[in-house]
Amino acid sequence: MSDLPKSVKIKEVGPREGFQFEKGAISVEDKISLVDALSETGVTSIEFTSFVSPKWVPQMADADQMVAGITRAPGVDYEAIWLNEAGLERAAKHRNTLALRPMFSVAGSDTFMRKNTNRSVDERLDELPGWAERYQKLGMDWLDVGVMAAFGCNYEGDVSPKQVVTTLQKVEQKANACGSRLGGIGLADTMGWANPLQIKRLVGAVRERWPGTPIKLHLHDTRALAIANVVAALEIGVDCFDSAVAGIGGCPFAAHKGAAGNVTTEDVVFLCQEMGVETGIDLDAMIAAGQLAEKVVGHPLPGKLKSGGNLAAYRERARA
Amino acid sequence: MSDLPKSVKIKEVGPREGFQFEKGAISVEDKISLVDALSETGVTSIEFTSFVSPKWVPQMADADQMVAGITRAPGVDYEAIWLNEAGLERAAKHRNTLALRPMFSVAGSDTFMRKNTNRSVDERLDELPGWAERYQKLGMDWLDVGVMAAFGCNYEGDVSPKQVVTTLQKVEQKANACGSRLGGIGLADTMGWANPLQIKRLVGAVRERWPGTPIKLHLHDTRALAIANVVAALEIGVDCFDSAVAGIGGCPFAAHKGAAGNVTTEDVVFLCQEMGVETGIDLDAMIAAGQLAEKVVGHPLPGKLKSGGNLAAYRERARA
Repeated sequence: MSDLPKSVKIKEVGPREGFQFEKGAISVEDKISLVDALSETGVTSIEFTSFVSPKWVPQMADADQMVAGITRAPGVDYEAIWLNEAGLERAAKHRNTLALRPMFSVAGSDTFMRKNTNRSVDERLDELPGWAERYQKLGMDWLDVGVMAAFGCNYEGDVSPKQVVTTLQKVEQKANACGSRLGGIGLADTMGWANPLQIKRLVGAVRERWPGTPIKLHLHDTRALAIANVVAALEIGVDCFDSAVAGIGGCPFAAHKGAAGNVTTEDVVFLCQEMGVETGIDLDAMIAAGQLAEKVVGHPLPGKLKSGGNLAAYRERARA
Repeated sequence: MSDLPKSVKIKEVGPREGFQFEKGAISVEDKISLVDALSETGVTSIEFTSFVSPKWVPQMADADQMVAGITRAPGVDYEAIWLNEAGLERAAKHRNTLALRPMFSVAGSDTFMRKNTNRSVDERLDELPGWAERYQKLGMDWLDVGVMAAFGCNYEGDVSPKQVVTTLQKVEQKANACGSRLGGIGLADTMGWANPLQIKRLVGAVRERWPGTPIKLHLHDTRALAIANVVAALEIGVDCFDSAVAGIGGCPFAAHKGAAGNVTTEDVVFLCQEMGVETGIDLDAMIAAGQLAEKVVGHPLPGKLKSGGNLAAYRERARA
C-alpha cells in the first residue's frame, strides 16, 4: 500500500445531493445551519445547492436564499451546480461568492444519458461547444468533465474502461476544437456498480491515457462497497473524493433501489485518519455535522461514525 | 491483488449475535423461520443460538427449543456457543445435531477480558486445562482460539500485533502442556477498531508465527470499515469470515456506541461475487433472508444489498 497519498481533498456534496433527494420540505434556515456547521469542519469545498428549475426540483427553489444566507468561512470554496444555460446564468450572478467550475457531464452509457437528460451521449457532445464558449466568457478555458455511470448502469449493465476512455477522448477532441482543454476528470459510480478491482482498472486506464490529469471519484454506497472503493483508490494514489455528510442523499430503508447516497464524509475522514492520510478535516466537528444532518432531515442516515464515535477519544481515555 | 482466494468460507452468525442483542422479545417461531431461510442459501455454517444462563440472557432461554425446531439442511453445520461448563453440558446433549467446536476465547486487552468475563487474561489462561480436558472427552484434542478485541479496545486503546501473538503463544503452550493443540485462530474486531492496514499487519504477524494455521476474521462494522477490512483480508488470501445476515447484531441508530453488528453477509457475498471469489452462497436467497431478518426484528437493519439489489438481475435485463 505504498502509493497511499499523503493527503486527500474531500468535497462535501451532502447539502446539494441530500436536500434534493429528501421528500419532506426542509426549511432554508435548517439547510443553512448544516452548511454553516460544515464550514467549521476544515473541509475546503462544499457543494450546497443547485440552480435548477423550481418546477422540476422544488426542493432547490431556495438556491438564491441559500447563497445569501450562509456564513462564509475563509478558505472554503462554496459550489453549486446547474444543468442548463439558465441555471449557469443564475449561478454566474453570484460569481463573487460562488466558486464556479466549468462543469461538463457525460455518461458511460447512452441509455442512462437519455433517461437522465433526454439526449444521447453524442447529442450531449454536440452541446459541448456552447458550454465551452459560456465558460470561456467567464474566464475559464477548460472543462471539468464528469462521467456519470462510469462503472455500470442499471439499463446497460457493466460499463468498460474502454467505453469511458473513448467518451473522454471525444470530449477532449471537441473541447480542443473550440479552444478549451480537458481539466479534471470525475468518475461517478452513480448507481453503485463499482468494486475495488474495477476502481483500479478504470483509474488505471484513464491515467494511462491522461497521465497528468487530476482524477476525482464520486461513489454512491448503494451496494455497500463505497468505502472499500475509496480504499482501493487511495492504494493507487487517488487523492480527490466527493462525499456526503452522514451519507445523506438516499434512503436505504425505502424501496428505492439504487437510491443510496454518496460515501459518508465522516466515515472517509475516519478511514483516512486511521490510515495516516491527511484530510485537513476535524473528525469530531464532521461527526457533529453528521448528527446535525440527521436532525435536519428528521430520519436516520446511514453514516456509522456519528454513532460509533471517533477512536481518538477512546485512545485519550485509555492513556489517562 | 493476486492473492485473492479462489473461494471463501462464510459462517453466518446473525441469529446468535442478533437475537441476543435485540431488546424486544422475538418469538421462537420467527427465530426458527430466519434460521430455516438461511439454511436454504447455500451457507455451510450457521451459529444460531447460545447456551447461556437465561437469568443473564433471557433472549437465549429458548436455545433447546431452537435446536429442536429448526429444519436441518444437508451440508450445513449448525453451531452454538457457550461461556461456561454448564453451557457446554447443555450443548453437548445435542451433539448428534449440533456441530460442536472446541472454542476457547481470550482477549487482546486485559481490561476488556475483565469487563467481559470478570477475569484477567492470565486467569482465563488458568482455565484452559479444564476446557482442554472437557473437549478431549468429547473427542476433540485441539482448541479453536478466538481473540476478542484483537485490534483495539475501548478501555485500553490500540492493541498491537505483538500483544496478540504473545497471548496466542501462551495459549498454545498451555494447550500443548495438556495434550491439546492450537486449531484455528479467530481474530475479532469486537469494538470496531480495525482498518485495512492493521488487518494486513495483524494477519501477517500471526501467519509469520503460525504459517499453516487457518485464520478467521470476525469484524464488527461500528466505524464503517468492516467491508474494507474484508477486502484487505481477501487481498492477502484470508478465506474465512464470520458475518451476519442484514448486519443484525447492533443498532447503529441508537446511542449504543460500539454496538454495530458484524459485517453484513449479503454485502460480503456481493463483494465476493463482483471480485470473482466463490462463496457457494446464492446471493438472491441471502438478500431474501436479509429482508426476512428485518421483518423479524421489526426495525431497519444496516445491510445495503437488501435495498440495493443484486447486479445480476440488472445485467440480465441489460442483455435482454
